Amino acid sequence: MGADYPTTDRNVPTRNPGRAHYDRTTVHAILDSGFLCHLGFVRDGAPVVLPTMYVRHGEQIYLHGSTGSRPMLAGRGEEGLPVCVTVTHVDALVLARSAMHHSLNYRSVMVHGTARAVTDTDHKAAVLDALVERVAPGRSQDIRPADARELAATALLRLELAEVSAKVREGGPNDDEEDLGLPHWSGIVPVRTVHGAPEPAADLDPSIPVPAYLDDLDRTLRTAAGR
Amino acid sequence: MGADYPTTDRNVPTRNPGRAHYDRTTVHAILDSGFLCHLGFVRDGAPVVLPTMYVRHGEQIYLHGSTGSRPMLAGRGEEGLPVCVTVTHVDALVLARSAMHHSLNYRSVMVHGTARAVTDTDHKAAVLDALVERVAPGRSQDIRPADARELAATALLRLELAEVSAKVREGGPNDDEEDLGLPHWSGIVPVRTVHGAPEPAADLDPSIPVPAYLDDLDRTLRTAAGR
Repeated sequence: MGADYPTTDRNVPTRNPGRAHYDRTTVHAILDSGFLCHLGFVRDGAPVVLPTMYVRHGEQIYLHGSTGSRPMLAGRGEEGLPVCVTVTHVDALVLARSAMHHSLNYRSVMVHGTARAVTDTDHKAAVLDALVERVAPGRSQDIRPADARELAATALLRLELAEVSAKVREGGPNDDEEDLGLPHWSGIVPVRTVHGAPEPAADLDPSIPVPAYLDDLDRTLRTAAGR
Repeated sequence: MGADYPTTDRNVPTRNPGRAHYDRTTVHAILDSGFLCHLGFVRDGAPVVLPTMYVRHGEQIYLHGSTGSRPMLAGRGEEGLPVCVTVTHVDALVLARSAMHHSLNYRSVMVHGTARAVTDTDHKAAVLDALVERVAPGRSQDIRPADARELAATALLRLELAEVSAKVREGGPNDDEEDLGLPHWSGIVPVRTVHGAPEPAADLDPSIPVPAYLDDLDRTLRTAAGR
């Protein structure tokens, strides 16, 4: 998978640096387990954090927006848009014997960099397909593709995976030695994201069955079992 | 619940303004359905987005960190730390007949403002309890409370709910009229966050049973049923 991502003064956490990871395998796996990121940028000197759909392809992530939205407009400029993109999956509640050691098991990735608009129409069409596939594998072959007008109204930002870090907490509570004899239960409660049964649109022809690829959705859960 | 939050030039979305809500009931319900936010701030002119635990109390939200972390240090200054806090719950995949109308059902809240450190020890202890209760109701009565040293090592930021907006998408796909006859399935796939069975710590005395309040956890799921 290539060399690790380099460490910089802004991707080494000040807290729990032992939980930080810079290898591509870990980073890619976390990014590929989700489709919603939180996109941070600066507007008039103040921070803004927008929930945004994304998909990774190689060493790029692509962010989905509409042409009228603020970050998408800014990304079209020559200088691009400085961003921080963060993806977080919660895997468990960590319930320790002491209030202080309560925690969460989680996997997160933070990407710093400059986002730039994708302008090539074929490239946009391919990214839109990848976004649909990420959410529901198989779906991109069972839809009407975007036409030229729709592609023009779709804004996509591209961000290179260059300054990247992952942070992972796993395992049980880290109780203090002197608390081990206390009478309180200690352990973890797994947290999982699951898909419910598909619900057809009100205007759907009832002779159209639920597609088989939707039966496979549970294999694409964004929370890894066993963490 | 009091008057709506005021609209400002930065809490009215440029896209789909019809999905925006400013009433306290909607905003509080979304905030109270979660415990993980994404905290955005500016460092050396660039955006940073950190996954962070939070809890709402009245018209304040409290953010949890450690005394050494960057935003917590900055929040101790007289001027506080300008932040944007965003909370997002994904409720469903929205699968339309066209690529373009694929979407997500979600509920999100965005809070802009200046975060300030909580310094009073009793206040900190009360907020820590509230954080534990939010994650596992009943738990704060079944732990060793934080002592003075632990409270000193805990940093909490407070942010007033003043410049706030919610954004909600619900319902089925919005297919174009001319796509309604296409042979593609259309509808939603619910997405839910669920708790697994509690797993005791390796060092737990096996005579200590799983507490009854953990059986109630599923009532506290952060994803509302039926959305």
